[in-house]
Order: sequence, then structure tokens, then C-alpha cells
Amino acid sequence: MLSVLEYSSIFIDYLSKRSLEKEPKSLYAPINYILDLGGKRLRPVLTLMATELFDQPYKKALDAALAVEIFHNFSLVHDDIMDDAPLRRGQQTVHEKWDINTGILSGDAMLILAYQLFENYDGTIFRELAKLFSKTAIEVCEGQQYDVDFETRDDVTIPEYLTMIEYKTAVLVGAALKMGAIVANASVACQDAIYNYGRDLGIAFQLQDDYLDAFGDPKTFGKQVGGDIIENKKTFLYLTALQKSSKDDAQLLEHLFSISPADPIEKIDTVKQQFIDSGAAKATQEEMEKYTLRAFQSLESITISEDKKQLLRDFGNSLMKRTV
Amino acid sequence: MLSVLEYSSIFIDYLSKRSLEKEPKSLYAPINYILDLGGKRLRPVLTLMATELFDQPYKKALDAALAVEIFHNFSLVHDDIMDDAPLRRGQQTVHEKWDINTGILSGDAMLILAYQLFENYDGTIFRELAKLFSKTAIEVCEGQQYDVDFETRDDVTIPEYLTMIEYKTAVLVGAALKMGAIVANASVACQDAIYNYGRDLGIAFQLQDDYLDAFGDPKTFGKQVGGDIIENKKTFLYLTALQKSSKDDAQLLEHLFSISPADPIEKIDTVKQQFIDSGAAKATQEEMEKYTLRAFQSLESITISEDKKQLLRDFGNSLMKRTV
Repeated sequence: MLSVLEYSSIFIDYLSKRSLEKEPKSLYAPINYILDLGGKRLRPVLTLMATELFDQPYKKALDAALAVEIFHNFSLVHDDIMDDAPLRRGQQTVHEKWDINTGILSGDAMLILAYQLFENYDGTIFRELAKLFSKTAIEVCEGQQYDVDFETRDDVTIPEYLTMIEYKTAVLVGAALKMGAIVANASVACQDAIYNYGRDLGIAFQLQDDYLDAFGDPKTFGKQVGGDIIENKKTFLYLTALQKSSKDDAQLLEHLFSISPADPIEKIDTVKQQFIDSGAAKATQEEMEKYTLRAFQSLESITISEDKKQLLRDFGNSLMKRTV
Repeated sequence: MLSVLEYSSIFIDYLSKRSLEKEPKSLYAPINYILDLGGKRLRPVLTLMATELFDQPYKKALDAALAVEIFHNFSLVHDDIMDDAPLRRGQQTVHEKWDINTGILSGDAMLILAYQLFENYDGTIFRELAKLFSKTAIEVCEGQQYDVDFETRDDVTIPEYLTMIEYKTAVLVGAALKMGAIVANASVACQDAIYNYGRDLGIAFQLQDDYLDAFGDPKTFGKQVGGDIIENKKTFLYLTALQKSSKDDAQLLEHLFSISPADPIEKIDTVKQQFIDSGAAKATQEEMEKYTLRAFQSLESITISEDKKQLLRDFGNSLMKRTV
């Protein structure tokens, strides 16, 4: 097994060699642009890792990994249109640099290109990859739709929120790993276990993202601390705080999440204090811990060496250590 | 073999029984809406017909036919956003009835749902259907991009225009037929021949659409006669007229296609006269004829009975008889 960094550099190398110098350039230039913008390449690395965990060379998994990364970027291009986001990874989004129509059409093409990469696999593997991909892709769409719906709903429950982040974010992490297991011809039980590991870690990671949005270190968080509070986003922290607060405190919180003051500093401070006082901050950390442990428990049933399991635990811990 | 009308009613029946009562409703309601809007159901009917041409029951082809129809409607939903079209089949477009974000996301989901329908087929058939579908879908995206690019280009050639309509419209007609042949386990030679028949008929049909836009009977054409001229659309008629006109006449035509008068009647009349005087109208009819005959020639190599070939010729002639 190589290190995460090594898999990442192998993948980036493979990505840069893929040939998308096709016509019409106006369709393919935005695709090359978004794929070259960078990012952690977390998902394709997981695909490569999973194949090696199950004793097959990572090379077999490169096209599946590329499909996962192209799909992820497809969803970013279309989500950025929907969110009217001007920037992605510090650069202009596709619809900003070109226009909305280009963003729609290039995104559509990326979804199809991802499917085409599975054609490099034979028989059952092709079928299983395409099937898992479709199931995951439709869940990602459903998750995105729930996220949109939640903006205008005031009765979102915590289980609904967890389903939303599972679909929108976590299932693709699980699928990235399971694809690597499929390529390596792992047993169905092992495929499912590694999927569950990835999905639960993905949920834990998203909960951590919610937590750090309020309580992260501005120097290391990467996004604006308090961004979710400014945007009145109904995160796990907010929904839990509502549930755990007295009627008066809950009403104050609901009021604060209905306004958008020009200077949001006081609002952010009040909300954060309420997140702490209500016990929501602690409950969110406990929930993160719960999903991380659940992810690790899924590893128990997998028939790989203890060393390799430790590697997956280390990976999980490194993802989740941002909390402190 | 049944009649086109019978296949159509079988397909509509199957479509109405599919279960898309899934959550979130906000994602699936627009999908049901556009699929229930009607339309000729030409493509799925061709899939069912092709399976029976090659001696297998149409029932086997229902899911492939549904995939083709869902894909076609996906492309309509996204194209209508790009064209800012308020109406589709006399009803509100999806992005008008809901909003652009809903149109984007529901469209994405439709593309994935189409792929999922192939999971109802085994082994090689699944693979061949998915492969043909991806190839066709990416060509449709490329065709749409060419169409967009042509709007702002003044050096579009006739071969480029023919490639654009082939990709944007005709390949899906060919693919619809080939899918039926794949489901029926027809030979590769027969699959390719029926594909070529459909593609060339699709090109002929699109050329006829261009022709009728200028010269059709307002009572039967269904769209506004002269619509392409009002929108300064570079159709086969226009590009051929430019090529066949004297320098002065070509300059006048280019000028007319750079303005958008409030009352377009005089412009339409002048342009139509130039289409006739330059010989472009006649050349377009000849090109339609050429592609129709080419489609019929592809039938020669197919190993089906003469009766069945006649059926395909009759179908082609019925599609193309709108000219008179």
C-alpha cells in the first residue's frame, strides 16, 4: 500500500494525461478547467486505496477513480449554478467564467463521460460499477433537492437533515470505496462493509464541517467561520440547539435565523453562545464521534489484515482530527 | 407487427404505469410533468418496432424505449432553459412552472434514471445498450453546443451544419432503432444498418423541418412559419442561399439576418423569395430526398422480410410527406 499522498499524485498524473482535446472546444474547455482546478482528490484516492486493500493493483482502478472525480465535479458545476456561487477553490466557477448555459451543458457531458469510463471494465464489473454509480448519482440529486427544499421549510427534523447529508455528500464517499472493492473482485460482504465505512465517515465529516463552520479556527478552516450562521443554514448544530433550548431561547434562535444584518458579528456571537449553552455543540461532537466509531466498526467484518484496517482507522482519524 | 399507432398506445400505457412516486416530490413532480406532456413518442415507438422487426416481442424493449423517451425529455428540459423557452407542447416549460434550479436538477435525475432502466437487461445487452446510450448522449450534447456556437459565428459551413443536426437530432433516432435491434439480439451488421436508416431519416426530417419553417402551411406546420427567419437562424436553407447567391444578394441576406424588425413580415417575404430565387429551396428539397433515399438504401442489407422493409419505407415516406 502507498500513502494517501502517493495515491493522490498518481491520480493527478493520470488525470492530466486523459485526452479531452475533443470538439467542440466550447463544450470541453470548461470540463478541463474544472477538473484542473485542484481540490483534495479525496474520492478517487479512496477508490485506488480500496482496490489495493483487496490485493489488486491500483492501476485497475484508475478509470473508476476518474469516473468518481468527474461525477463529483459535475455536481459542483451544477450546484454552483444553483447556489449562484461566484468562486470555487478560489477561482471563478464555470458559469461565472463562461455562462449558465455552458455550465448546464458541460455538466451534462461530464455525467455521461463518467459513465463511459466504466466501459473500460469487463462483464460483471462494468455492470456493478454502472449500477452503483447510478444509484449513488440519483441519491446525490435527491440530497441536493432536500438541501434546496430545507431552505424554505421551518419544520426540518434532525433525521431528515442526516438523510440529506448522507445523500448529498456521504454516499459518494462510500461508493468511491466500494468501486475500488468491485474492481478488485472483493466479496459482496466486503464491498458492503467498506461502503458503510465510507458512508459513515462521510456523515461524520459533514457534521464536523457544520461544527467547524461555527467553532473552527479561522486560520485553518478555509471557509469563512460563521458562514452557515450568516446564511441562516439549518445545520445539525442549529436543529439540535432548537430542540435542546427553552421555548424562549428557541424563539430567539429562530428569529436570528430569519434576519440578515449588514454587520453579522453580534448575531454570530449570540448564536454560537446559544449553540454552546443549549448543549448542541457538545451533542454535535458526540454525533461526529458516533458516526466515526460506527465507520470503524464496519471494518471489523472485512477480511483484510489488521495492518490495513489500521490504515483505514488512521485515515479516518486524520480526517476527523480537525476538530481540536 | 403492429401499427405505429398501436405501438404508441402500448408505450403510453407503459409510461403511465411506471412508478415515479418517489421522494423528494419536488424532484420527481417535474419529471412526471414533462413525461406526461405528450408528444409524438416517435423514438420509443421506433425501439419497440425494431425489436419486432428482428422477431422478438416488443415487451422486451419497453424499458429501453422508456430510457430513450426519458433521455429525449431530459434534453428538452435542459435545452428549454438554455433557449429561455416559455412553452413546450403548448404548456409551461419545467423551468417556467418551477424554476431554473428545478429544471437543472430534475433533468440531471432523468439522465440517470434513463441509465437505470438498462439494469433490467442482462449481460451483453445491458453493456451494449449503456454503451450506445452514452455515445449517443454525448453526441447530443455536442450537437447542442454546436447549435449554441453557431448563433455567434458567421462562418458556419454546410458540412458543419449537417454534423450539428446529425448530432443534435438524428443520432437519437438511429440509436432508438438500434436499441430495439440490440434487445432482439440482431447481428451487428443489422444493428448498424438500422441505425444508419434512422440517422439518415433523422437528418432528412430535420432538413424538412428547416424547409417547412419557411415554406410550410401555417395550418398544419404547428410552429410559427418564418420563426427561424425571425430568429436569424442559420439553417440549411440560409447557408445554401448564401452560397448560391451573387455577392450583392448574399450581402443583403446577411444584413437581413443581422436585424430584428418589430414587424418581420417584409423581412420574411424578402428572405423566402431569396431562398427560392437562389435555388436554395430546391436544393434543400433535393438534400432531403438524398438522405431519405440513403436511409432506404441502408435497409437493403438487413436480413428481414421484404414486407418489413416496406413497412420501414412506408414509415419514412409518412414522415417525409409533410413537404407537399
